[in-house]
Amino acid sequence: MAKPSQLSVLLVSLVILFRGCLAANQQQWQQPNDCQINNLEALEPNNRVECEAGVVETWDPGHEQFQCAGVAVVRHTIRQKGLLLPQFSNSPQLVYILQGYPETYQSPQQGGFGESAGRSQQDSHQKIRRFRQGDIFALPAGVAHWCYNEGSTPVVAVVLLDVANNDNQLDRNPRKFHLAGNPHQEFQQQRQQERFGGHQQCNNVFCGFDTRILAEAFNVDERLVRRLRSEKDYRGAIVTVRGQLQVARPPRTQSQREYEEDSSEYERSRGRYGGDNGVEETMCTMKLRENIGDPSKADIYTQGAGHITTLNSLNLPVLRWIQLSAERGLLHRNAMMVPHWNLSAHSIMYAISGSCHVQVVDSYGRSVYDGEVRRGQIMVVPQNFAVVKRAGGAEFEWISFKTNDNAMISPLSGRTSVMRGKGRRK
Amino acid sequence: MAKPSQLSVLLVSLVILFRGCLAANQQQWQQPNDCQINNLEALEPNNRVECEAGVVETWDPGHEQFQCAGVAVVRHTIRQKGLLLPQFSNSPQLVYILQGYPETYQSPQQGGFGESAGRSQQDSHQKIRRFRQGDIFALPAGVAHWCYNEGSTPVVAVVLLDVANNDNQLDRNPRKFHLAGNPHQEFQQQRQQERFGGHQQCNNVFCGFDTRILAEAFNVDERLVRRLRSEKDYRGAIVTVRGQLQVARPPRTQSQREYEEDSSEYERSRGRYGGDNGVEETMCTMKLRENIGDPSKADIYTQGAGHITTLNSLNLPVLRWIQLSAERGLLHRNAMMVPHWNLSAHSIMYAISGSCHVQVVDSYGRSVYDGEVRRGQIMVVPQNFAVVKRAGGAEFEWISFKTNDNAMISPLSGRTSVMRGKGRRK
Amino acid sequence: MAKPSQLSVLLVSLVILFRGCLAANQQQWQQPNDCQINNLEALEPNNRVECEAGVVETWDPGHEQFQCAGVAVVRHTIRQKGLLLPQFSNSPQLVYILQGYPETYQSPQQGGFGESAGRSQQDSHQKIRRFRQGDIFALPAGVAHWCYNEGSTPVVAVVLLDVANNDNQLDRNPRKFHLAGNPHQEFQQQRQQERFGGHQQCNNVFCGFDTRILAEAFNVDERLVRRLRSEKDYRGAIVTVRGQLQVARPPRTQSQREYEEDSSEYERSRGRYGGDNGVEETMCTMKLRENIGDPSKADIYTQGAGHITTLNSLNLPVLRWIQLSAERGLLHRNAMMVPHWNLSAHSIMYAISGSCHVQVVDSYGRSVYDGEVRRGQIMVVPQNFAVVKRAGGAEFEWISFKTNDNAMISPLSGRTSVMRGKGRRK
Repeated sequence: MAKPSQLSVLLVSLVILFRGCLAANQQQWQQPNDCQINNLEALEPNNRVECEAGVVETWDPGHEQFQCAGVAVVRHTIRQKGLLLPQFSNSPQLVYILQGYPETYQSPQQGGFGESAGRSQQDSHQKIRRFRQGDIFALPAGVAHWCYNEGSTPVVAVVLLDVANNDNQLDRNPRKFHLAGNPHQEFQQQRQQERFGGHQQCNNVFCGFDTRILAEAFNVDERLVRRLRSEKDYRGAIVTVRGQLQVARPPRTQSQREYEEDSSEYERSRGRYGGDNGVEETMCTMKLRENIGDPSKADIYTQGAGHITTLNSLNLPVLRWIQLSAERGLLHRNAMMVPHWNLSAHSIMYAISGSCHVQVVDSYGRSVYDGEVRRGQIMVVPQNFAVVKRAGGAEFEWISFKTNDNAMISPLSGRTSVMRGKGRRK
Repeated sequence: MAKPSQLSVLLVSLVILFRGCLAANQQQWQQPNDCQINNLEALEPNNRVECEAGVVETWDPGHEQFQCAGVAVVRHTIRQKGLLLPQFSNSPQLVYILQGYPETYQSPQQGGFGESAGRSQQDSHQKIRRFRQGDIFALPAGVAHWCYNEGSTPVVAVVLLDVANNDNQLDRNPRKFHLAGNPHQEFQQQRQQERFGGHQQCNNVFCGFDTRILAEAFNVDERLVRRLRSEKDYRGAIVTVRGQLQVARPPRTQSQREYEEDSSEYERSRGRYGGDNGVEETMCTMKLRENIGDPSKADIYTQGAGHITTLNSLNLPVLRWIQLSAERGLLHRNAMMVPHWNLSAHSIMYAISGSCHVQVVDSYGRSVYDGEVRRGQIMVVPQNFAVVKRAGGAEFEWISFKTNDNAMISPLSGRTSVMRGKGRRK
Repeated sequence: MAKPSQLSVLLVSLVILFRGCLAANQQQWQQPNDCQINNLEALEPNNRVECEAGVVETWDPGHEQFQCAGVAVVRHTIRQKGLLLPQFSNSPQLVYILQGYPETYQSPQQGGFGESAGRSQQDSHQKIRRFRQGDIFALPAGVAHWCYNEGSTPVVAVVLLDVANNDNQLDRNPRKFHLAGNPHQEFQQQRQQERFGGHQQCNNVFCGFDTRILAEAFNVDERLVRRLRSEKDYRGAIVTVRGQLQVARPPRTQSQREYEEDSSEYERSRGRYGGDNGVEETMCTMKLRENIGDPSKADIYTQGAGHITTLNSLNLPVLRWIQLSAERGLLHRNAMMVPHWNLSAHSIMYAISGSCHVQVVDSYGRSVYDGEVRRGQIMVVPQNFAVVKRAGGAEFEWISFKTNDNAMISPLSGRTSVMRGKGRRK
């Protein structure tokens, strides 16, 4: 049985209404990693879409830094009563909650039918999980999820999609499959031409099926199917829930309540004839969340300098499956993290607060970056490239996603601490 | 000790005598998966070769559906007393027996020398395994095998080659290495130009070695080596065994019998100086076969709708090694399998009997297929693409190969059964 | 605690002073394996660089044989008192000691900071490992190492870099990251154009960082940092140690001794503020070395023919991690290894002594090689290609690196021994 005390999840979905542009030729995304990088950049999202109840911002996945690392990144802002509509991706994902309070809760759409388990249909269920600031969620490829902000402040999350992962058997394009609403593919408007000469009025997965087939499959009438397809719904990937979001959760009796308004029609219909898309049992019972925002859990703590908390497959086993890990760090004013390299992972660093001076060096001994990284920016540090960070005039906090389930770093000089405070030396 | 009560299998070999055409440029096969698919198709084999004792049919592996999935498919028909000559491939394979009775038996060529085991040569052996309709065999990359039809009806098998598998370290071209006879590369005539300006008179592996070297290595005279090379043997990959096929099997004394006719010369010569090509101990003792044709073993059974049996690494551990699994299903007349998607695998569906209406939807919400799939046709459903199936006016049976050792599906709506009979609803 | 009784090693670094040529366009290296090979060759190193205390020889990694196998190869000769400067690579490596006596010792730079372990900095350490002829070392990607020849004869080592390995997340270019000295990228002069219009005066990793930042990070003065950067040091990757090399090793008290001359300045400075770059605990305690040169350990022994010793993940578990294994063989005069193929690995054979007649056959039954392989030459035998070897007029010894942690071979004829002596037959 799923408990409502756990939180859930994740999200990311970018809506650009009235935008054309799906790519005709994506050949340039199909190449193996190419890390012939002469200059790195601190990157801000270069696409922003306002939805009814939030904002979706993406970084261009075609940028050479992301192509080298084989990842894509998106940032979601979900306002009060905002619902990030259900979706899944061809890539495993890591989600870090930059902002959000415990009263927020969400639910991945899980349970249901696992081919391998040979179970019958009655054990389908969905897990509701609450989350808070500092949480990381792991989302395997193809697992559906949605996210609802029940709290009074916006939820902000940064999401890494590992498109180069072995579990993505399509191609290197980050894709979202939407189970509701009418959002555009969030990464595609940046590079692509509309294939069909205009904005699609319906692009969630239900749109492609015949209305009668869906009505029969779900045992509902066709009018409800048309609602499900959300045609001409231009509110985007994050919509406002009017009244109360009502989802199936223990005790199950709650799920029979009626909702009051139109925008919760989606949930209502799902409440009747389904609503919990599935994933196999072992995945369902696996822990998908861990908090790494709490300084008291730091693995590395250097007085006067800062602390680092790591999350890998040893403390969150699902990470072995999706081959990702993360590092959450804080440097005090002017403190530094000494020069080091990542042994067998790329590091994708997102600056949470403050700013930092970063230098990165390649295999030729050349500097490929020497500059600031500020709050909200992302920098990719390729595998084996050496890097040093020094905080600016205020505390610097970051989250680094790493493309290995047990990423390790090695300092150029190992006997010292990996962090060093300002003023204690020289 | 290998027991003759097990069966084996193996198959697939395409012979096109007097055909030119090996490809000079296969660059288009070398790319990573590209799944920019606008339209799927239900495909029939587009190449057919009559051999002395059977037929080899292949689907063009260069078709975008197969390129996306990273697989190749072949179908073998082996008539009574037909022997599919020994061979191995650079790709792991899954073989499904569409038709064939227990009195048929075969033998993979196993045992012999495992580098890693450090054993001496006396423990070489070969396993004889019988098979029957509904069986699936797993064949790791590089493992030699042959197949003999001792029964009175033709054996028909459909074979999936997972060329995108990590164990294939060559390239994306499906290749067969033949240990006897003179068959052409079965997949190549479809795309390629003859490299050498004409049909080769000898193209099994022995052909490339010096006659004297082989005579010395096998301690036989050169006349026998020339037989082994099968020069100017144009009977193809499936030949008729005159008299009785005699292979080494317990009790070993059988293997000293003499055979009566020319076509068993191959076995005779192998009986003398070898005949059991090797694979390492753990692979030898591993179970390679499972039957999934029996409805009583179904994992999912819905009254009035149908049933599904899955085979994955949990019930056949060798599948973990080769990273493949399979699903065998049956839908009653007009029954349907509700809309669902594959989480982290491609699904390659072969229609065994009947026909089925299929709809497939991509990440843009577009229909990429809406039509029939009939007996003998193949359709690739790419990872994460949503699919619905409804049986036609008769029972529909299928086998789906999946590119993950524990492939899972998720229904768009999970609370209902994944199958639904006609007439019970609405 | 690390014991000095173990040895280590690792090496490989190629210095071409005053050479231009880093490649602007390396696209041809970025493709997946392409094994459309019509002819193999026995290859000698085609680049040779004299360093102050040794020689670095490389084989062109762009050659189609190495492109097919996804590997690069280098050979190091380190003279008495020669130090191969510290470095690491984006690829896992296997090192075979062709020549070298027990009094030689080296040290990989290990210990230090493991992200995943959450340990504080005091447990940093480095392991000193001795080695001798016939030893194989496994080096995971990103692990720093150096090698010092304390003996009286040159150390000669052949090193395989598995650039196609999953742990290399950059691209297919073999790269070295140098932690001292000023060596060029050893593989690059063969294909590339100088990017910056001339020889770089400083190309180790320290060169790219700001002097002040390094001084602060390491808590030393800037003069020492400039030494660390080794600007205008043209001695190459292998330098002479004047006086005695002094590295931190148990008992640690040794590490406080002062060194006498300039070239040990590097170690002195590292002795003060570091010197032991890190790798995570489990890697540190893992055995990285095994000797396979001893005939008494042979897995296969055939009287009058020869013997074979294999090293795989069953007897050296770190090989599971880096997905490589090795085979060390000896054939007596005119003895042969019977025709066989590698099931799921490429085999990269280096001829240690003597010569051998080799025939290799592809999937079309064509001979792709029929000729000698002599001492010091390398031949790639692609996965599944059949091969036969016969020793020439003297004993033939070889080491084969294999791109699978448990590579297996299968003889064309399995009942006989895989080896056969001359004169016992026919």
